[in-house]
Amino acid sequence: MERIVLTFLAALGFVPAFVQQASTQADPLPSWNDGAARGSIVEFVNRVTKKGGPEFVPPMDRIAVFDNDGTLWAEQPFYFQGLFVFDRVRALVRQHPEWKDKQPFKAVLENDMKTRAAAGLHGLVELVMATHAGMTTEEFERTVKDWFATARHPKFNRAYTDLVYQPMLELLAYLRANDFKTYIVSGGGIEFVRTFSEERYGIPPEQVIGSSIVTKFVVREGRSVLVREPKLDFIDDHEGKPVGINKFIGRRPIAAFGNSDGDFQMLEWVTAGTGPRFGLIIHHDDAEREFAYDRASAAGKLDRGLVEAPKRSWTLVSMKKDWKRVFSFEKK
Amino acid sequence: MERIVLTFLAALGFVPAFVQQASTQADPLPSWNDGAARGSIVEFVNRVTKKGGPEFVPPMDRIAVFDNDGTLWAEQPFYFQGLFVFDRVRALVRQHPEWKDKQPFKAVLENDMKTRAAAGLHGLVELVMATHAGMTTEEFERTVKDWFATARHPKFNRAYTDLVYQPMLELLAYLRANDFKTYIVSGGGIEFVRTFSEERYGIPPEQVIGSSIVTKFVVREGRSVLVREPKLDFIDDHEGKPVGINKFIGRRPIAAFGNSDGDFQMLEWVTAGTGPRFGLIIHHDDAEREFAYDRASAAGKLDRGLVEAPKRSWTLVSMKKDWKRVFSFEKK
Repeated sequence: MERIVLTFLAALGFVPAFVQQASTQADPLPSWNDGAARGSIVEFVNRVTKKGGPEFVPPMDRIAVFDNDGTLWAEQPFYFQGLFVFDRVRALVRQHPEWKDKQPFKAVLENDMKTRAAAGLHGLVELVMATHAGMTTEEFERTVKDWFATARHPKFNRAYTDLVYQPMLELLAYLRANDFKTYIVSGGGIEFVRTFSEERYGIPPEQVIGSSIVTKFVVREGRSVLVREPKLDFIDDHEGKPVGINKFIGRRPIAAFGNSDGDFQMLEWVTAGTGPRFGLIIHHDDAEREFAYDRASAAGKLDRGLVEAPKRSWTLVSMKKDWKRVFSFEKK
Repeated sequence: MERIVLTFLAALGFVPAFVQQASTQADPLPSWNDGAARGSIVEFVNRVTKKGGPEFVPPMDRIAVFDNDGTLWAEQPFYFQGLFVFDRVRALVRQHPEWKDKQPFKAVLENDMKTRAAAGLHGLVELVMATHAGMTTEEFERTVKDWFATARHPKFNRAYTDLVYQPMLELLAYLRANDFKTYIVSGGGIEFVRTFSEERYGIPPEQVIGSSIVTKFVVREGRSVLVREPKLDFIDDHEGKPVGINKFIGRRPIAAFGNSDGDFQMLEWVTAGTGPRFGLIIHHDDAEREFAYDRASAAGKLDRGLVEAPKRSWTLVSMKKDWKRVFSFEKK
């Protein structure tokens, strides 16, 4: 077979039998330690892809959904989109001098994160609207990309897009090599995540579901654009996740991956379907290589999921024990 | 090359060069007459797929969006989903005897379509809510499928799903064979269209965008379900179409196909992008084989599109002149 055809087939996720044999001998999940978590993933994939097997699932129904913050990339000291919001407030204060005396903007400008947090969800929404609305979709995309190009994570001093989890990148590739279609289902903003999902995760924009604000079609000087309005459209978190999945995909996925109680209903709904199902929760218990947090965290709170995962036969991943590497930039 | 690989490649929309040559000699659009409309389609596809050409578009950006009612299937004497609503009112009146004396239900029950129409959009929304909400997403899907299995079109005495346009099925297949991803962007209900889009058009549920009502995640006796609520979520028509496309796809398609002024903004937005663009409007001018209507029609009103199509270089299709066949069941 010609090399170009092989390359083309591989790009499409199809690997001819003789190559497949070789690649199943090679480890598709090199950053995962041997153990129950890794074993449950491989066992599930084998079951649903085994032709003629009792639990075979046809490729069109192999849909897997992934939370983003804390599941595909880090979310501490706070959601990265939140840090983007704070940076935008600092940049936009020149045009909005009144923010210096107005909460919750004042707290952000004075780096008073306690007061900022005390303003709660309502305060956060106010900050989001002030920084995410009033421009076209193209202008917003450019602003986010510019931020990613220069902003650095406070602990690792690296671009935020470097903070994606290497074991999860391997898992995404492994599922796609087995004809799964992989989706992101994020509590974060859909247009924020779309700016990097294709490049970092290989997930195209149409496979990203997320929270959104209202956009409006406007014709400006003969040119049609979409303008972002300061009005909530949809919150893709908790009960919103199964709702968002049903709206965008129109069928129930067979596998769901999350890390916080914001993912609970997504896992609950996905694993309640008939046929083989898979649910997985990542537990952030590695203070050294990443962060250790669960019940008491402002970002990525995990409580109910920790309690119920065993009862519901969901896989619980210990980042400390199950992951050989967390980030690709770590020394091997 | 082995036959199985060829079959697999074809299923993925990839056809090796030697096969391609043969298949471009066979006519991919046999139900289209030779003429300007057909020529403009073929010329556009050739331009964007020509490797090394000045207007080459990579496969990932080859996105084409199609209106459904009046573009992919018929919409007279009224939108088929409207006829479904009226049938549901007739079926549900046993549980709602009060409808016999209440408008707009009374008008539907008495087949008084003039009074029904006079109730306007508000009246129609009331009918939709009474028939589309209050059940789970699975229950709704079953009801729609049951209706399609038995309901017959008043003029053609055939299942509504037989009323899809043969030339458009060929066009969808032709675009997909050229690595286009085809989407439906319907003013109709997203979950209504999804019940038949894969089987009739080869368009999977995740490539259907449409109007929606709110759904709510509920755990009932330990089982999680999505319940349809009598509340509008999104109207995917007129200005809503570009908004819906941006929300679901996250990038601007390069080709748009419609038939009414409800598609105007979609065509306007799609063809306003940079690089090669294609817009097409179908004009229903064939009273004999289908229906003839435009400016005065309650369903699929076309006025502005007729006036502006030439100025905007959009292709205008005459069903009478440009289509050799309208439906697949016609005698050749």
